[in-house]
Amino acid sequence: MKNPIITLTTDFGTRDNYVASMKAVMLNVNPEVNIVDITHEIRRHDILGACFIIANTYHYFPGWTIHVVVVDPTVGSERRPLVASINGHHFIAPDNGVLSGLFQDPEDISVFAIDAEHYYLRPLSSTFHGRDIFAPIAAWLSKGIEIENFGEKIDDYVDLKLPTPVVSEDGKLEGEVIHIDSFGNLITNVTRDTFERMLEDAPEHKFQLEIGDVVLSELKRFYAECEPGKPSLLFGSTSQLELSIKRKSASEVLGEKKGQKLTLTFS
Amino acid sequence: MKNPIITLTTDFGTRDNYVASMKAVMLNVNPEVNIVDITHEIRRHDILGACFIIANTYHYFPGWTIHVVVVDPTVGSERRPLVASINGHHFIAPDNGVLSGLFQDPEDISVFAIDAEHYYLRPLSSTFHGRDIFAPIAAWLSKGIEIENFGEKIDDYVDLKLPTPVVSEDGKLEGEVIHIDSFGNLITNVTRDTFERMLEDAPEHKFQLEIGDVVLSELKRFYAECEPGKPSLLFGSTSQLELSIKRKSASEVLGEKKGQKLTLTFS
Amino acid sequence: MKNPIITLTTDFGTRDNYVASMKAVMLNVNPEVNIVDITHEIRRHDILGACFIIANTYHYFPGWTIHVVVVDPTVGSERRPLVASINGHHFIAPDNGVLSGLFQDPEDISVFAIDAEHYYLRPLSSTFHGRDIFAPIAAWLSKGIEIENFGEKIDDYVDLKLPTPVVSEDGKLEGEVIHIDSFGNLITNVTRDTFERMLEDAPEHKFQLEIGDVVLSELKRFYAECEPGKPSLLFGSTSQLELSIKRKSASEVLGEKKGQKLTLTFS
Repeated sequence: MKNPIITLTTDFGTRDNYVASMKAVMLNVNPEVNIVDITHEIRRHDILGACFIIANTYHYFPGWTIHVVVVDPTVGSERRPLVASINGHHFIAPDNGVLSGLFQDPEDISVFAIDAEHYYLRPLSSTFHGRDIFAPIAAWLSKGIEIENFGEKIDDYVDLKLPTPVVSEDGKLEGEVIHIDSFGNLITNVTRDTFERMLEDAPEHKFQLEIGDVVLSELKRFYAECEPGKPSLLFGSTSQLELSIKRKSASEVLGEKKGQKLTLTFS
Repeated sequence: MKNPIITLTTDFGTRDNYVASMKAVMLNVNPEVNIVDITHEIRRHDILGACFIIANTYHYFPGWTIHVVVVDPTVGSERRPLVASINGHHFIAPDNGVLSGLFQDPEDISVFAIDAEHYYLRPLSSTFHGRDIFAPIAAWLSKGIEIENFGEKIDDYVDLKLPTPVVSEDGKLEGEVIHIDSFGNLITNVTRDTFERMLEDAPEHKFQLEIGDVVLSELKRFYAECEPGKPSLLFGSTSQLELSIKRKSASEVLGEKKGQKLTLTFS
Repeated sequence: MKNPIITLTTDFGTRDNYVASMKAVMLNVNPEVNIVDITHEIRRHDILGACFIIANTYHYFPGWTIHVVVVDPTVGSERRPLVASINGHHFIAPDNGVLSGLFQDPEDISVFAIDAEHYYLRPLSSTFHGRDIFAPIAAWLSKGIEIENFGEKIDDYVDLKLPTPVVSEDGKLEGEVIHIDSFGNLITNVTRDTFERMLEDAPEHKFQLEIGDVVLSELKRFYAECEPGKPSLLFGSTSQLELSIKRKSASEVLGEKKGQKLTLTFS
């Protein structure tokens, strides 16, 4: 393959040599590979946090990119290492649900439990499979080894139930905050498609959002349009409804966290 | 072009997927491009901070490098996206003054307001032009598309007045702190050239610097020559006069900030 | 050379333009080079910290990789710049002991004091040899210039005595904490080889470790096996004995620091 790309998403931080060791192992196997960091600042052991990042990023990369995701609190235990082909991309990760965002309505999906130990780094540690298993498997995959060679196809991989918005009996849309970015913006699981469809169907095409003590009924188009210091609502870069405070962290000001519920009433 | 380089300077941080999404979009257009991070830790919305970094870094790169600078508080509003050719390098940035450091006495300069929408990522968001406009334009430029194809040539781009030192009526040089690096060194706008010329012209070739409560009349050559804990004066890596405290942060110890005035008296 | 790799290990952080300037200078000399960050978050001026990182990372990279290590508190003084060939890899660093971890029992070693000024960046600053000396020397080395051309071979380079565990008169093994990773794990200088040999030689194959107030006599295989909140002992990714607290920072909880002594009694 020409110009193979491997991306990395981990909770290792960049202070230690953990990430560099993974890159070194990959370059040893395939010196041609282009390694791109997505982030190494996933909150430690935050499987759903990594899940959000990879599911909202992978599709911007060229097809056939190999995405390695290592948030792996149960490394060394019986949890399996996975390699998967999903929607024309490749993913390598522990079988702990970190890929669940990719498992929703895939166009195509094949998941394999890695057990081809001859590809592993030796000696195999029981504390750092990122370096010893995931990195070399990614590099060998980038060299054109067929995915079937790394293990058995499986269907019983861990698939975490991700929070999706529901329509209540009285027609309200109930969603929640699923991610807080480093600017403190509260990103919800309400997509632009769902929002616009329900708004169009409403008699007066009006809406009201309630989240904690905040009530909003207007949509901004971009950050500069928002009033400084006041909570504003807009669709962010992932086309998901987002609560933002201009020049401040909405998360800090409002004290809201991931999982905070919100209600949208259309009228 | 062989070995095209695109650099990135942003205030996005590295915790989210914003930077990785930009890289993904660029690699989709041009898989051959070498993407180099300058920094993603510009203080949020600090246009002058990014201005200092790019103006003091770009010239170390090979000619024809493409520098993408995204500190963009007014994204989505009427502010224009720019692509410019300056001193043999290329720059892509919002028209908010972030390139002002390059606009001082350029050897050659052509600035274009980007409007060639067929190069944009679709759908175009109104909150993330870094990914949707700047990244693809940079990648197409790196593939050899002529700069004229991206928009109309303009002369009315935003050019912020940057603080430059002035000679007062009584012959003193009045400058200021324009940057504080991560070691806490206070970097001023007094260049080595100006300083040495005025020192040579002075009758006894002596100087005295006053900044806040600090008075200094000696120049050190390097950090190890400085006395621990005491404010020292030297020319830093950008050949600008710098106030440093060995093993400490001069900024924290002295409580000085960007914009702090200083006076140099030559005698 | 095909696919040349240069790694960077510094205490510069990633907020300023210091690292990017080094990369720019290297790409100017050799546009083909693949620059890999090991870390830029070595604690400021922590020579032994950088020493630990490079000695535990370099060997995962392909042979002939060039490793640039810049933790350089005495930059500009008489301290020499070094280029060395050790165990089939190349190293470029100030002569302040930062390479001492590589000087222990090398298979092959040649060290040169760099003085070939025609390879330096001009004008040469006295505050930033990372950019002006180490970066261009690394890039010229990656282009195939023979190492002998950069300076004179020397034997009197700075070789810091690193703490190694000793066996006391009563047969106990006395070691110490030599590194604390960003998870707060306490990494000691007791290797798996030494530990297992002494355990095997002991009559009942039992051990007891004392460190501060903590006494442990059991070894875990991986983090998930540890009890949350309790200090546990295991061999980490570098095959060195490591004190860890599941879901916590052992360093914070126990208040232990680098240099903390430990005693292993075998029975």
